[in-house]
Amino acid sequence: MSTKDSYFPNLHSITIAVDAMGGDFGPEVAIPGINLLHEENRDIRFLLFGDESRINPYLSKFPSLMKVTHIVHTDKMVRMDEKPSAALRASKGTSMRMAIEAVESGQAHAAVSAGNTGALMAMAKVVLRMLPGIHRPALCSVFPSLESSTVMLDLGANVLVDAETLAQFAVLGAVFAKAYKNIPMPTVGLLNVGSEEMKGPDHVRAAAEILSKVEIPGLYKGFVEGDDITKGTVDVVVCDGYAGNIALKTGEGVGRMTGLYFKRIITADPLAIMGGLLASFALKKFKHKVDPRRYNGAVFVGLNGICVKSHGGTDAMGFSSALRMAAQLARHGYTKKVADEINRLMSQESLLSHGTFEE
Amino acid sequence: MSTKDSYFPNLHSITIAVDAMGGDFGPEVAIPGINLLHEENRDIRFLLFGDESRINPYLSKFPSLMKVTHIVHTDKMVRMDEKPSAALRASKGTSMRMAIEAVESGQAHAAVSAGNTGALMAMAKVVLRMLPGIHRPALCSVFPSLESSTVMLDLGANVLVDAETLAQFAVLGAVFAKAYKNIPMPTVGLLNVGSEEMKGPDHVRAAAEILSKVEIPGLYKGFVEGDDITKGTVDVVVCDGYAGNIALKTGEGVGRMTGLYFKRIITADPLAIMGGLLASFALKKFKHKVDPRRYNGAVFVGLNGICVKSHGGTDAMGFSSALRMAAQLARHGYTKKVADEINRLMSQESLLSHGTFEE
Repeated sequence: MSTKDSYFPNLHSITIAVDAMGGDFGPEVAIPGINLLHEENRDIRFLLFGDESRINPYLSKFPSLMKVTHIVHTDKMVRMDEKPSAALRASKGTSMRMAIEAVESGQAHAAVSAGNTGALMAMAKVVLRMLPGIHRPALCSVFPSLESSTVMLDLGANVLVDAETLAQFAVLGAVFAKAYKNIPMPTVGLLNVGSEEMKGPDHVRAAAEILSKVEIPGLYKGFVEGDDITKGTVDVVVCDGYAGNIALKTGEGVGRMTGLYFKRIITADPLAIMGGLLASFALKKFKHKVDPRRYNGAVFVGLNGICVKSHGGTDAMGFSSALRMAAQLARHGYTKKVADEINRLMSQESLLSHGTFEE
Repeated sequence: MSTKDSYFPNLHSITIAVDAMGGDFGPEVAIPGINLLHEENRDIRFLLFGDESRINPYLSKFPSLMKVTHIVHTDKMVRMDEKPSAALRASKGTSMRMAIEAVESGQAHAAVSAGNTGALMAMAKVVLRMLPGIHRPALCSVFPSLESSTVMLDLGANVLVDAETLAQFAVLGAVFAKAYKNIPMPTVGLLNVGSEEMKGPDHVRAAAEILSKVEIPGLYKGFVEGDDITKGTVDVVVCDGYAGNIALKTGEGVGRMTGLYFKRIITADPLAIMGGLLASFALKKFKHKVDPRRYNGAVFVGLNGICVKSHGGTDAMGFSSALRMAAQLARHGYTKKVADEINRLMSQESLLSHGTFEE
């Protein structure tokens, strides 16, 4: 059966294409993760791409899930350590590529993979193609903030980019905040260093100059600093993938260390252990609130279609968060909204011109 | 009385020169901060630079401190919002410059200021001068890690730098770890993005290439990611000031948010409040452990002398941490150790050549 057939002829509900072989654990994590979302929402359908013999042992444990799931068998998969360029050349028929192709052909509304990030981005670019005028895709996700959450991009799809590309990320981030978080006029800040003197690297300052002149589907608020991400100073924080990836990972590290310190200090004190028992309900709530798995999943923005990357080492709960993000974006008609906004902005030549950074 | 005289002729103990007017609060925070360190160590002497009429009301509250303190009066001070270049031109006779000059003339072992970072760096470069062959100073400090702490630089003295400068930071960071943390052979990692594909920006990859070839006063371990800072994977994490500043501030933000979440969730639940009372001793210990004020203070490395920058908005406890760092570096003979190591490395032309990035 080829992926060009329609497995679920009635597409009233959302269909998510899943690369079941991606990530450090493949179907072992993907299938229980899919089932978590299925338990929340029985209408969502799943197209699984991968090795049937490896998927079935896990899938058979969830009879209800089986009813909304279709497996498209393939032996081929992308290895986690493969070079993206090599993976792309040999990508035909891999579970990753087939999942993305299902979005392109209209059989699925979104694709999700926990596989090799570079390969996923390369394939998504080739299969789904860039939106007109957009130079590069960016990895976009949400961060917890004090009162809500902050949209942030780029989290590492690129490293250092030019000013124009950075300004485009501001547009893509604003559209994401509109579609995903339903904010009519999102505020946007450019991540920079906070020292009095240094207003940052050239590309950041030049992007600020562009953003102060052009119209974006949001409100440009100027520079923000690292701690503004969690303060929630703006709805969208824009940066290059170098700063974004380092900020993301550093923040995760601090969160993890704080939790471990806490556990260690509390469990070393008998009175505190008793106190912890009394507070167990609140502590559970707290643990849930800061659980990084709830924020797993980042979408490649700037493409004609939804492609979500899950952390490769996450567990079923984490994988379900990435699936939920895909489903939510699909339900909000994200792809069309982005395309409409980009079309509307196409007249702004300075921001959406072709090619200067195209690969 | 000119700063060229020796106020404390017997220099057996450490003397710290303090810009008493720096930061958001000037002497209001500086003097109680100095007194906190004084209560720990009565041998340390302080040379205060600033407006006597503003310093005395605070200093007179601490009779014991007065005995080890000498005020050098000046009306002139550097404003927090002043442009560093302008501040440098008009710096003669300012409390900030006089504090640094006291180090240069040998009257003090280290200078501490909570003032304008850019101005402080500019003056420190002019007055103390760079170590031979070193291109630029970097801001270096310690971060809490799970089992100990991680030395990190640059935290924002520069933004993006070239590969050679980044490799020099590795040398300066290793020497700092030796002198400040007494690690005989510190391990050093280069901060980079963690994605499979992108091994990071050109300057980071080129620095890695240099570091894999030259001898440094430590053990170069290759790339590390943002969460390795708190994991303590290496003793020293090296990065440019753009990534370093963003990582530092993001980490601080996550720490603050986690604390506020915790407080909010605990205080909303009566049982948890009771539990908190039982655990109050452990909670206090936890709070102390993660208190960012304990990690306040960063030193400009690469100079002929110790100049410590305190956060401008910190309180007395935070300021005392910066002073403690200055005292500790002075006691360990940091300046001489760095100079010796740099001299030893001078033969490595590729790493310590003159001028390519000099201002």
